[in-house]
Amino acid sequence: MYKSNVERIKKDIESLARFNATPGNGLTRFTYSKEDRKARDYIKREMANMGLKVYEDAVGTIVGRLEGRQNEAPAVMIGSHFDSVKNGGNFDGPAGVVTGLEIARVLKEKNLTVEHPIEFIAMIEEEGGRFGSGLIASRAMTGNLTRDDLDNYVDSDGISMAEAMRDFGFDPDRFQGSVREPESLKAFFELHIEQGPVLEQSGNEIGLVEKIVGIHQLEVTVNGRPDHAGTTPMNMRKDAMDMASKVISKISHFADNADNGTVATVGNLNVHPGAMNIIPGKVTFTIDIRSPKEQCIQRVYADIDQELTDISESMGMNFSIEEKMRVSPLRFSEKILEKMKYHTKKLGYSHKIMSSGAGHDAMMMAQITNVGLLFVPSKNGRSHCPEEWTGYEDLAKGVDVLLNTIIETAGVVQV
Amino acid sequence: MYKSNVERIKKDIESLARFNATPGNGLTRFTYSKEDRKARDYIKREMANMGLKVYEDAVGTIVGRLEGRQNEAPAVMIGSHFDSVKNGGNFDGPAGVVTGLEIARVLKEKNLTVEHPIEFIAMIEEEGGRFGSGLIASRAMTGNLTRDDLDNYVDSDGISMAEAMRDFGFDPDRFQGSVREPESLKAFFELHIEQGPVLEQSGNEIGLVEKIVGIHQLEVTVNGRPDHAGTTPMNMRKDAMDMASKVISKISHFADNADNGTVATVGNLNVHPGAMNIIPGKVTFTIDIRSPKEQCIQRVYADIDQELTDISESMGMNFSIEEKMRVSPLRFSEKILEKMKYHTKKLGYSHKIMSSGAGHDAMMMAQITNVGLLFVPSKNGRSHCPEEWTGYEDLAKGVDVLLNTIIETAGVVQV
Repeated sequence: MYKSNVERIKKDIESLARFNATPGNGLTRFTYSKEDRKARDYIKREMANMGLKVYEDAVGTIVGRLEGRQNEAPAVMIGSHFDSVKNGGNFDGPAGVVTGLEIARVLKEKNLTVEHPIEFIAMIEEEGGRFGSGLIASRAMTGNLTRDDLDNYVDSDGISMAEAMRDFGFDPDRFQGSVREPESLKAFFELHIEQGPVLEQSGNEIGLVEKIVGIHQLEVTVNGRPDHAGTTPMNMRKDAMDMASKVISKISHFADNADNGTVATVGNLNVHPGAMNIIPGKVTFTIDIRSPKEQCIQRVYADIDQELTDISESMGMNFSIEEKMRVSPLRFSEKILEKMKYHTKKLGYSHKIMSSGAGHDAMMMAQITNVGLLFVPSKNGRSHCPEEWTGYEDLAKGVDVLLNTIIETAGVVQV
Repeated sequence: MYKSNVERIKKDIESLARFNATPGNGLTRFTYSKEDRKARDYIKREMANMGLKVYEDAVGTIVGRLEGRQNEAPAVMIGSHFDSVKNGGNFDGPAGVVTGLEIARVLKEKNLTVEHPIEFIAMIEEEGGRFGSGLIASRAMTGNLTRDDLDNYVDSDGISMAEAMRDFGFDPDRFQGSVREPESLKAFFELHIEQGPVLEQSGNEIGLVEKIVGIHQLEVTVNGRPDHAGTTPMNMRKDAMDMASKVISKISHFADNADNGTVATVGNLNVHPGAMNIIPGKVTFTIDIRSPKEQCIQRVYADIDQELTDISESMGMNFSIEEKMRVSPLRFSEKILEKMKYHTKKLGYSHKIMSSGAGHDAMMMAQITNVGLLFVPSKNGRSHCPEEWTGYEDLAKGVDVLLNTIIETAGVVQV
């Protein structure tokens, strides 16, 4: 069994963490920023030091390619993203980029020759932290990005993604150069932090992801009538907040009933007009429903819709539901999952087969190749915040699993 | 019985409605604005035409004084405010100012001499629409305004009330000149629109207000933990929105249980961080509880506090309650109420003895004199909006009641 070096992993994570627009207040590294440039230079330099052929694709994803003995054969790709949310942590994204760097180091150190080429990659704008829409690198690779998107995605200063690309040295009109043909890839691997408490609480070291959950995001509007909070008797009100609260208070129960790991969240709510002494005339709130089973999502949706209908009828009010996003659950390659499980066991690490509740670049990549997604534990389940943390020893165990899985997948000949 | 002239009332209301910063979008007339100046000039001119002695008090309330045969005797005062909320209606405030103008006209027309002087007034900044804090004219008259208040109350452009006064021609350092000694007043009368649906729905023409409700305003903060909405299982969440909704959904029930016209309203709610895919870590919401009975307010408060305690314990979360405002119910002069009732009946108008759910200048004036507050119906109970409406015939009936009540109170000798 090959093993990674925890000290080198720690050094990579800490080095990348310095390229940060908000030191002392979590990690903020937006795509095409000064901090992106510095992190990019670090990653390219490290890749070059390992003898990789380094280039950037048409949207700026960094690729370090290790030539294979059969260099025309499909490549094994491994990586994750190196952008962050605003005031996020050091691991969401970089953990997977550093995994690639460390695997490349071990291959060089052990002087291994691969049959299939291996591409170590560092992807951009997964979070949508700067331009509001995420998974950009993997959408570009899989043909799920349009030229219009680059104009329409705008940062908080009003700069479009296309303008920012141009300023940064990439030509937005050539973005399609990022597209990868399915024939050019053998597999895609990603290590990511779990961003949830399941591994830690279950005491498992490795999460082997068999599915990404389906997501249904809604915005509900409840229409009442804005009246004076002092002069309108209780029985003459059309209180949009009262109705909304009666529905929202049931949603966690609906998710529990659907079981199978189904979750539902009301993450935002706005009250109009929103004054202490005015009965709310309108309330809008978001609902995010996720489940590895499509029928569970549909069941929660139906329960919410029924509750809204019943309560609005009894209160003499009305509502509307707008669909904001809808993706079906996705199952990853069983064959690759079995390979990862084999190496996990051989390394003596405990594992849990699980679903991912969050979207990842691996989800897009599954459209064009076989994908393996591996989770390492998140301390207290925290993520997208300065407290985001994964122990370096824990991270190294994940790297070990992918190191051995990739060596098997790429076919390595010891010289 | 004396009667008012509905055409003149209509003309006054419509004339004042033209001094409006937002024509076509409701009435907006902020204190010390251009529109205040124009409305002020109109009111002063009308008062002068009726032979009143016109002056402005130290904060800008307009006073038109009709001298009495006993001119040193305490004055009977009548009026309301002429400022508005943003995008409000034509009646909230002006209805009571116009009532004074019309009564003065009838007295002049009938050539009546009064025993006690009568002061017809038009008050400023009752709504707090410009400087955020209301009842300013009556607070100034009753000694409930400080010099610091004038510096601390600031409009949306950052202009303090003191600065605005100075620019408008009043010296903020002399604001205490507005204070009225209780000995200088015999009574204060105010006509106001109901701002609620009770008169209209009960089919009564006149509301005789025996009480102003007590008000308890709170801000509740529920503390949870912000986690990823996709990766955190339902049973590992501390969802502040879930907890808040479970409490809020019960509040209308608590108000119903307390009975006696008790009302409770959650008028605003804020979610932190407020993203579709993040479990709310903190929710703050306001509660406004009103009742003519103090013990009913206390009962609703206790029910809410108990519910927060129970739910927070069962969900492993915590909360805090901040008191924002607390005033006890206030009972007006029974003697004056009886007088108003007598004249209402004699005029053949139907009436309802009721509580006011909103605060009014009359509430402050009750600290220094006997007060009579009379309501006229609001169409559909609407107020503080462009749709605010009271039929001119309905308004004239209210004017009739106060006209005859004031003639009795001031003691008029027909010449």
